[in-house]
Amino acid sequence: MTPYDLSVRFFLEAALILATCRLTGLVFARLGQSQVVSEMIAGVLLGPSLLGSLAPDLSAYLFPPETRPILYVIAQLGLVLYMFLVGTEFDLGLLRSRWRSAAMVSAAGIVVPFVLGALLALYCAGDPRLFSPATTTGQAVLFFGAAMSITAFPMLARLIVEQGLARTSLGALALAAGSLDDVAAWMVLAIVLASFGHAPAIAIYAIGGGVLFALVVLGVLRPLLRPLGSRIEAEGRLDMATLVTALMLLMLGAWFTDAIQIYAVFGAFLMGAAMPRGRFAAELVRSIKPLTLALLLPFFFVYSGLNTRLGLVNTPSLWLLAALVLLAATAGKAGACYVAARLAGEPHRDALAIGTLMNARGLMELIILNIGLSRGLIQPALFAIMVTMAVATTLATTPVFTRLHGRRAEGLVP
Amino acid sequence: MTPYDLSVRFFLEAALILATCRLTGLVFARLGQSQVVSEMIAGVLLGPSLLGSLAPDLSAYLFPPETRPILYVIAQLGLVLYMFLVGTEFDLGLLRSRWRSAAMVSAAGIVVPFVLGALLALYCAGDPRLFSPATTTGQAVLFFGAAMSITAFPMLARLIVEQGLARTSLGALALAAGSLDDVAAWMVLAIVLASFGHAPAIAIYAIGGGVLFALVVLGVLRPLLRPLGSRIEAEGRLDMATLVTALMLLMLGAWFTDAIQIYAVFGAFLMGAAMPRGRFAAELVRSIKPLTLALLLPFFFVYSGLNTRLGLVNTPSLWLLAALVLLAATAGKAGACYVAARLAGEPHRDALAIGTLMNARGLMELIILNIGLSRGLIQPALFAIMVTMAVATTLATTPVFTRLHGRRAEGLVP
Repeated sequence: MTPYDLSVRFFLEAALILATCRLTGLVFARLGQSQVVSEMIAGVLLGPSLLGSLAPDLSAYLFPPETRPILYVIAQLGLVLYMFLVGTEFDLGLLRSRWRSAAMVSAAGIVVPFVLGALLALYCAGDPRLFSPATTTGQAVLFFGAAMSITAFPMLARLIVEQGLARTSLGALALAAGSLDDVAAWMVLAIVLASFGHAPAIAIYAIGGGVLFALVVLGVLRPLLRPLGSRIEAEGRLDMATLVTALMLLMLGAWFTDAIQIYAVFGAFLMGAAMPRGRFAAELVRSIKPLTLALLLPFFFVYSGLNTRLGLVNTPSLWLLAALVLLAATAGKAGACYVAARLAGEPHRDALAIGTLMNARGLMELIILNIGLSRGLIQPALFAIMVTMAVATTLATTPVFTRLHGRRAEGLVP
Repeated sequence: MTPYDLSVRFFLEAALILATCRLTGLVFARLGQSQVVSEMIAGVLLGPSLLGSLAPDLSAYLFPPETRPILYVIAQLGLVLYMFLVGTEFDLGLLRSRWRSAAMVSAAGIVVPFVLGALLALYCAGDPRLFSPATTTGQAVLFFGAAMSITAFPMLARLIVEQGLARTSLGALALAAGSLDDVAAWMVLAIVLASFGHAPAIAIYAIGGGVLFALVVLGVLRPLLRPLGSRIEAEGRLDMATLVTALMLLMLGAWFTDAIQIYAVFGAFLMGAAMPRGRFAAELVRSIKPLTLALLLPFFFVYSGLNTRLGLVNTPSLWLLAALVLLAATAGKAGACYVAARLAGEPHRDALAIGTLMNARGLMELIILNIGLSRGLIQPALFAIMVTMAVATTLATTPVFTRLHGRRAEGLVP
């Protein structure tokens, strides 16, 4: 397909994706699901699980493999713009009284699921349906542990924002713990990949680069941008040149964190957190929000659905293992985060909300699973089990969370 | 490259493109050029003409062929969003007193350059440096005529908007004539391609589909959307669901006109023109404008520069022909449109402005030339001559136009 052919097909895909998201949004809002889940379901409907099995020819025409990289990049663009906006709403000041909770929750949210995942890996390391013969037990343990400790930071962030909690101390706590877990899981994955490839540089780049990036962005760039913030505060509006500069910094941060393999989400969020507060941040949100939310971000959540293939878990023993994985994932993540939050002094309701949010795996899980599958570490059956776990934890999050915190619509969502 | 690799490289390209546009914007604004030209120049600097010849390895790393389709699609996305906005500013009512001028200018702007191009083609049809041996004289005449009658509608629209003329009757006249010429040139090209491929369906789809599209969008969709416009007028703000619906219609229009080969620009512009006026249109502009102008649209103009390879016109006889082509192109387009506007009763200054605007060829010319080159109708030397003409007419437009109308910054541009 020529670039021209690709753009024709892309416009058709975009129209279809927007129309499907509108429909699922109408239906699933009544079922107590959030907009983000309805977008993931739109992706499942348009993907191999429904459209692909009902009308394979139509599906192959509408979503040919050649357009996948384009959908992926536009999804990533939408995602980093969104995480940048979430970053501008993130207020370290709100966290002051709760930094201990954030540290304990994120530590528990990494360590406990990792240990439970490692135990599960020890239990089933020899099974040829799950791991390929070339995978050693040590590698299985590391990979399973990393895969269990994933948190869907973009989904957590979107729920926090959709519920109007971004500027509350609970929201700041969840965002801080989520972003720490997100970056920690990618660092663990980098260690796993380094040990598989006997290339320690991967881990050194990821961990050293990640720490360096955070120090430079928050310690150097943030104070440097402060005069710009005062100028915009005085002028009352953001000029085009400053908006372009901010977007350029965002792209640079997304590129750097992507390149060192701790994922663009973290870079975009931190870059947003480094932007001057007040009028500057408000004008950034006003300029970037509507098109990002209405057009670009849905590609990200739809893309994750497009890549979800349900129905591969099809024998009783695999169902049993899937139930075990789901139980371990929820106990290790939601349970451990709840206990950690309670130990840090959070009230029951807030601790439950945090645990629920941290439990969603979303697309992040699919990314790490695809790495494992494409490098021949795990087999399709284990892939399907883990996908089932990711979908279940993701779908469960919104109803539980909205029951705890009601349905509001403030913050970034108009 | 995996989708992940592509997105990493894309973020780097995006940062580089935004930074280069900021720099060229600063420099070329002082030289009397508009933002749109400075973006095209940024593309030339980053493309084969400068970066590619100074540092070929770096250039190959930064802009690998695999990312071209992605840059193209994002450029197209930015372009259709922009043309949609221009469409929402287009006011048929302003045209009422000047519809005769619009008809005469657009007719002259198609017919005269086509005839001059055909004469030039007759003059040099046998030259093997220019046309491939397989091209018949009739085909050479049709292709050359179509290539000469191109108008860079997106560039014309952006200049009109940058100068704050979109809501004036002069702006409406230029937009109407530009869009008519744009769609007419694509219809002529469809006839050319149909005659080359002995496939009359191409021409029937393009012409029949284009007329049908205009009738349905303006005759059926526009009245259907009116109640929505009244609701938004009463509510005072655009809700997310309505914004998504408008964007979905835009994508559908872009897809349809692209698929019938009269190009997405026309579909996006007409779809914008069909949107309810007043608060609805103003809210669309407010929601879509900032991110489109700051992030997405620059990809389109940079992409056109990235694909411009200067320096292939390198013998005296080719220089002579290039001068002849440039003369014929300017006389046929700028001259004929000026005369037509004067005959229709326009004042000298407005007629000159219209002629200047219609003369810019921009990226549209490159698209048709690439079709001719890739299908083996023309040779690289003729391609280079026509590219030189396109660049010269494009660069000349802004200084002449701003001399006539001064520098303002209203309308879409903040």
